[in-house]
Amino acid sequence: MNIPIFRLNNKMLKITLIGSGNLGTQLGLSLVKNGYQVVQVFSKSIESAITLAEKLNSKATNDLNQLIDTDLAIIAVNDDNILKVSQLVHFPQVHTSGTVSMKDLNQNYPVGVFYPLQTFSKNTNVTFDEIPICIEASNKSFLHQIEEIANGVSNKVYIMNEEKRGKLHLSAVIACNFSNLMYQCANEICDDNDIPFEILHKLILETAQKIEKSSPKKAQTGPAKRVDKTTINKHLEQLKDKAELLEIYNILTNNIINRK
Amino acid sequence: MNIPIFRLNNKMLKITLIGSGNLGTQLGLSLVKNGYQVVQVFSKSIESAITLAEKLNSKATNDLNQLIDTDLAIIAVNDDNILKVSQLVHFPQVHTSGTVSMKDLNQNYPVGVFYPLQTFSKNTNVTFDEIPICIEASNKSFLHQIEEIANGVSNKVYIMNEEKRGKLHLSAVIACNFSNLMYQCANEICDDNDIPFEILHKLILETAQKIEKSSPKKAQTGPAKRVDKTTINKHLEQLKDKAELLEIYNILTNNIINRK
Repeated sequence: MNIPIFRLNNKMLKITLIGSGNLGTQLGLSLVKNGYQVVQVFSKSIESAITLAEKLNSKATNDLNQLIDTDLAIIAVNDDNILKVSQLVHFPQVHTSGTVSMKDLNQNYPVGVFYPLQTFSKNTNVTFDEIPICIEASNKSFLHQIEEIANGVSNKVYIMNEEKRGKLHLSAVIACNFSNLMYQCANEICDDNDIPFEILHKLILETAQKIEKSSPKKAQTGPAKRVDKTTINKHLEQLKDKAELLEIYNILTNNIINRK
Repeated sequence: MNIPIFRLNNKMLKITLIGSGNLGTQLGLSLVKNGYQVVQVFSKSIESAITLAEKLNSKATNDLNQLIDTDLAIIAVNDDNILKVSQLVHFPQVHTSGTVSMKDLNQNYPVGVFYPLQTFSKNTNVTFDEIPICIEASNKSFLHQIEEIANGVSNKVYIMNEEKRGKLHLSAVIACNFSNLMYQCANEICDDNDIPFEILHKLILETAQKIEKSSPKKAQTGPAKRVDKTTINKHLEQLKDKAELLEIYNILTNNIINRK
């Protein structure tokens, strides 16, 4: 026999969305799709606020003094503006940053962090289901509230304090922004030599997929891993007129060799 | 009205496979699957030669003086052994290396290169269909022969001279081995801080997929791209006890900033 479970339904919560950039847009769409009510959207640009508010069946404003009190403000603005915006939000609130402290938020109210670990594009709709969301809150009952909202949009919710979140953000910069720089360097060499960069697409994807089954340490291949000095010297010779790339090649190759 | 086209069917060609490592194994399986005949498999280890030969319905040997003449030897051995092996192959031949010159092969016969741009694992069967194969040959008719075999196993065949192939190999090392090193560095920070590395999997995959639609230059995000010095300084502070990582962080961050 199935026993029906009654519990507080957080989908009755009223949410204010502050910021209509890539993250604000995608998060707003995902919240509404999952049955949450976004009451008001703020953006510095009223046009931008209206565009998003219309999609969310919500009100729009470009004046922080006109915010309607709700159960939760999600402050999805640039890191540099979080402190200043927060002082004008007079109800419970979270920011969405990987690096800003929860202590920078208005301490007169419950505060927290709701950090989705992903890069968002405004016009590419994403499903939040698989996007990890790291949360933190100034008190337990507020944490549970945030957790339930996070669970409502994602299957991967992690409770994580500020220090760990900072380390995770650092890891993400290294794993993603720096990898993308490597793609950019490779693209440059291809362009210089009239080689279509798309030749590398499959290998790049395979490299990224490999570490889901094996650790990056075990998955490593190539001349540095094999300490194949003949090939390494050929590469250094090819880069002799590219000082910056040569420096990167040297340091990363030596780092791989030193890790053996 | 359809006019039947008759052409030389290269699938009648007899092939010798020299090397039963990851590449040799996967290439052999793909050739046979696509209707080519592998007559003989050589490996230093007779057990290894027999294991692969059985899968390919082929003969096995561990003695290069016992090679049966065929239309084509595919020399899929370590770069350092290509020259020495080639001198004992007395019929047309290609090697599979990204960095070795075609001139290192036995010049008494037609020679060429058959370089599949991918990392192979011996026990993970791959479909060659989408793997780019870069080919080169010492004469036109041999090039056509190699091209037809390459087209038989892959949809992406590129005719490419030695210089370009070397640049492509360098690009692949930068785009893949160095990216994998970035994953490894991120993994290390996660482990040190008791953060499950799998949190980053989706973001890493997304970063690799993004450049199929957009150039890496346009796809770049993060603190270095935004010249967000507050975040960069936080990261440098977090790495102050990790000299090697700190050096990598500094150089790659400055490189991204300089590219703006």
